[in-house]
Amino acid sequence: MLTLRKPYLVYLGDATVKSDCKTGFGLRDWCRSDVLAEWSHPDGTVTLGLERLSPAAAAARGAGSLIVGVAPMGGTLAQHWVADLEAALEAGLDVVSGMHTRLGTFPRLAAAAAKHGVRLVDVRHTGERYPVASGRKRSGMRVLTVGTDCALGKKYTALALTRALQERGAEATFRATGQTGIMIAGSGIPMDAVVADFLAGAAEQLTPDNAPGHWDVVEGQGSLLHPAYASVTLGLLHGSQPDAIVLCHDPERREIEDCPGYAIPPLAQVIDLYLRTGRLTNPKIRCVGLSINSSSLDEGAWRDYRARLERELALPVCDPMRGGVAALAHALLGR
Amino acid sequence: MLTLRKPYLVYLGDATVKSDCKTGFGLRDWCRSDVLAEWSHPDGTVTLGLERLSPAAAAARGAGSLIVGVAPMGGTLAQHWVADLEAALEAGLDVVSGMHTRLGTFPRLAAAAAKHGVRLVDVRHTGERYPVASGRKRSGMRVLTVGTDCALGKKYTALALTRALQERGAEATFRATGQTGIMIAGSGIPMDAVVADFLAGAAEQLTPDNAPGHWDVVEGQGSLLHPAYASVTLGLLHGSQPDAIVLCHDPERREIEDCPGYAIPPLAQVIDLYLRTGRLTNPKIRCVGLSINSSSLDEGAWRDYRARLERELALPVCDPMRGGVAALAHALLGR
Repeated sequence: MLTLRKPYLVYLGDATVKSDCKTGFGLRDWCRSDVLAEWSHPDGTVTLGLERLSPAAAAARGAGSLIVGVAPMGGTLAQHWVADLEAALEAGLDVVSGMHTRLGTFPRLAAAAAKHGVRLVDVRHTGERYPVASGRKRSGMRVLTVGTDCALGKKYTALALTRALQERGAEATFRATGQTGIMIAGSGIPMDAVVADFLAGAAEQLTPDNAPGHWDVVEGQGSLLHPAYASVTLGLLHGSQPDAIVLCHDPERREIEDCPGYAIPPLAQVIDLYLRTGRLTNPKIRCVGLSINSSSLDEGAWRDYRARLERELALPVCDPMRGGVAALAHALLGR
Repeated sequence: MLTLRKPYLVYLGDATVKSDCKTGFGLRDWCRSDVLAEWSHPDGTVTLGLERLSPAAAAARGAGSLIVGVAPMGGTLAQHWVADLEAALEAGLDVVSGMHTRLGTFPRLAAAAAKHGVRLVDVRHTGERYPVASGRKRSGMRVLTVGTDCALGKKYTALALTRALQERGAEATFRATGQTGIMIAGSGIPMDAVVADFLAGAAEQLTPDNAPGHWDVVEGQGSLLHPAYASVTLGLLHGSQPDAIVLCHDPERREIEDCPGYAIPPLAQVIDLYLRTGRLTNPKIRCVGLSINSSSLDEGAWRDYRARLERELALPVCDPMRGGVAALAHALLGR
């Protein structure tokens, strides 16, 4: 499994728009105690509101990694950031990126990392080998966030649910499966980068045997309804063997994004699809509730929508951004 | 897509047991006209019954590749074959292997390939990048062989069905998705080696737009019932968008091999699972019949088994090794 050196110095490049720094804000919001400070290029204007430290100053204060917390258009690393990243390597920090361009393709960075004995970590890629899945039942409990589509709150829901479980005194671990999640958790497996044969095996590694009352809260990926990504979703579902799922949905989404004609069916059917499919590796799988991204609904519309769904599905319906996920934690723990 | 240079010189190493040379026999049986000759190490005793030619003699007669047609225990390449493979490279042949060990990890082979401008091709691996699947419907027709488990006749059935379609005057292309299939076809994509995000996209590339009456006959992989490999099966099912499936089964197989407790459900349920799942990318998907590996049944038992299945499922039931697959071709073409 990928493991990162904390605490972090978060790098915001030359960003002038907050939305380009989603990763940086996510780190500040979800692992604040692991974020030592922020740093940016002189042309950058975005700030997380944290102390500014140069790579050398951050290293002197104990930082382990500089994290690229900005995602430029196209997902490629800007040439003029390279000097800043090189400075971090020279200061003894690992450099961690979630971009498509591998850090090692910049000869200056590859040379500096080798010279100073530090790592270039591309959390979007994995060179690791995973075993073939065994399908063997493991001890401990697991909950997986699943979705009607990509990018509608599976990571956010898993993070919020981990907190809610911990607040109720339960042992819970967030298990990261995508780049930002891995940065937040400090470890994880980028599922969509794993070679197909080893996908379910990687998910088994991610969620190993654990204490009977312990919950792994697994960040979902993709959707079984997605014509390109369903196999990633399936490998994660089969390998993580969830005892429970939470279905994530955005009521604005009528079709799979960028896939015209791929309509999202009624949610009862979607839940049924996930449960039928998940039963292969865990016959006891159940759906404990829904997590809705309700940002498109005003307060009244959200109240009506939630009441209707709860009545139709006989399950708790939450929005982590609007009232939290206590009902989901309660459904998992029975307390 | 991986493309191999034909015709082939098939190398049998120092094999003394026929079953170690399944790949070699498969090539002889399924692409006889592409196999120029055979060659082996002096200690080998297995023969395909073809002309013996040294790499140099085969190259002089126009061979394009030496294919490693022997799979030793453990799937690793024996050190004492390296000299033979090096001789092939020196003679100007590509060397093609389906083993886990990459050919390029033998420094002598890597050096010889570079020096003579020929290729080392590992059909079990793929370094190629594939696009993300679009889910867009393509022209032409596709049939996919699917299974209740791995290793029960999906490749053999697809090859036999391709021939049967061609014999009936239909245009048909075998589409290879595994190592032996790729050697037989001379091209293909090793699906289980593709990075998860691009699995369905690779399957779309493998089965591109085609003439309206043309059939792609796609070699299936794994099984939706397999706790380790179902995601490979799903990516291939979604990406190839089959108009028709053929379910392959071995009546001896009650559980998924090496996965105790994973029972194979009644075949009607398995067909239903594949059709429901495949409908995502092709709502018109149908099952046209079953291909049974009946080697465990005597003649009477096979007759009874087939009659019972045909009655229960109202579908043609064949064994490609016992009477052929004409009924499947008929069901596809309606003639």
